[in-house]
Amino acid sequence: MAASAGPEIERLIALLAKLPGLGPRSARRAALALLKKREQLLEPLAASLAETAAKVVSCSICGTPDTRDPCSICSDGARDNGLICVVEEAGSLWAMERSGAFRGKYHVLGGLLSALDGVGPEALRVAELVGRVKGGEVREVVLALPATVDGQTTAHYLAERVAGNGVEVTSLARGVPVGGDLDWLDDGTIVQALRARRPA
Amino acid sequence: MAASAGPEIERLIALLAKLPGLGPRSARRAALALLKKREQLLEPLAASLAETAAKVVSCSICGTPDTRDPCSICSDGARDNGLICVVEEAGSLWAMERSGAFRGKYHVLGGLLSALDGVGPEALRVAELVGRVKGGEVREVVLALPATVDGQTTAHYLAERVAGNGVEVTSLARGVPVGGDLDWLDDGTIVQALRARRPA
Repeated sequence: MAASAGPEIERLIALLAKLPGLGPRSARRAALALLKKREQLLEPLAASLAETAAKVVSCSICGTPDTRDPCSICSDGARDNGLICVVEEAGSLWAMERSGAFRGKYHVLGGLLSALDGVGPEALRVAELVGRVKGGEVREVVLALPATVDGQTTAHYLAERVAGNGVEVTSLARGVPVGGDLDWLDDGTIVQALRARRPA
Repeated sequence: MAASAGPEIERLIALLAKLPGLGPRSARRAALALLKKREQLLEPLAASLAETAAKVVSCSICGTPDTRDPCSICSDGARDNGLICVVEEAGSLWAMERSGAFRGKYHVLGGLLSALDGVGPEALRVAELVGRVKGGEVREVVLALPATVDGQTTAHYLAERVAGNGVEVTSLARGVPVGGDLDWLDDGTIVQALRARRPA
């Protein structure tokens, strides 16, 4: 590393390099940009991070990071309490919200079951989900988990855990993405899209 | 944007997206990682940025960002005051330092002349450089500027401004990079390497 950069800057670079999407080199560039734009970037970012660290908590009901607990979604009376969408991370939740297609509540697992990484149910917010389902108000649990091995393993596990409480467990449809060209689709997706074909 | 993320998180994402190498999507991922790793990442980064904003100043002599002024390089008596290496940004300075090949002092321009972006000499630390040269102690000015149009324009301009003070103005050699395969080199580099060929 650059001895001349000084310990504070090297520490900043090391921390930036831990962000997904940034490596050692791009972290150095980022640190440089921060040092060049003190008023516009460095100081606002420092303040924003401090504010986030101070204010943002994860919702005690669904696990979404928010400044209020229960979060703005859980405390939104206009949303359907009978419908719970289970997502891996807040990122998926934000994506669902951008789509504007879902008007129920959410449950953020905080990860996926993974034999390789040794992630078991106790590491995820599974017990909380079962608790919410046993609460009685829930009619349907929509599993919006990634179409990966871990994602599907987790989905099957959750379906079993949640079953038998008079709840319907569904999961997002698989198929050709909007604008998806068959030439570019993997076989798995085509197989799924064909199996799930419907009258045009 | 995700309304559900809340203003604080959206603001953090917007600021992260301004970092080079991060776009709106990766900034979202980064914010998510920060929220997941509060103790290991979010709080240390907030503290580190605050410390940098508070402590780091740019050296009044060479313009390097450092916690001391003059910076650790300018105040290093073991370094040759007669040799000044002119770089675009601190990033280039750090790269030179990592190479360990240069034992003189530096001068950080803070950018390059650019007709397109309307960057003139007054926007760069050119006057300071001329001042240091007129100081008399300087024997040689090494221009370590990028081999781009702006970089070379700046180099020519600086060579003219600095000339006539009994200083030698040099610039880094061009040629085949170490480990460079001719197949992968652009013609310009090959032409330069051929022109500058030397007895093996």
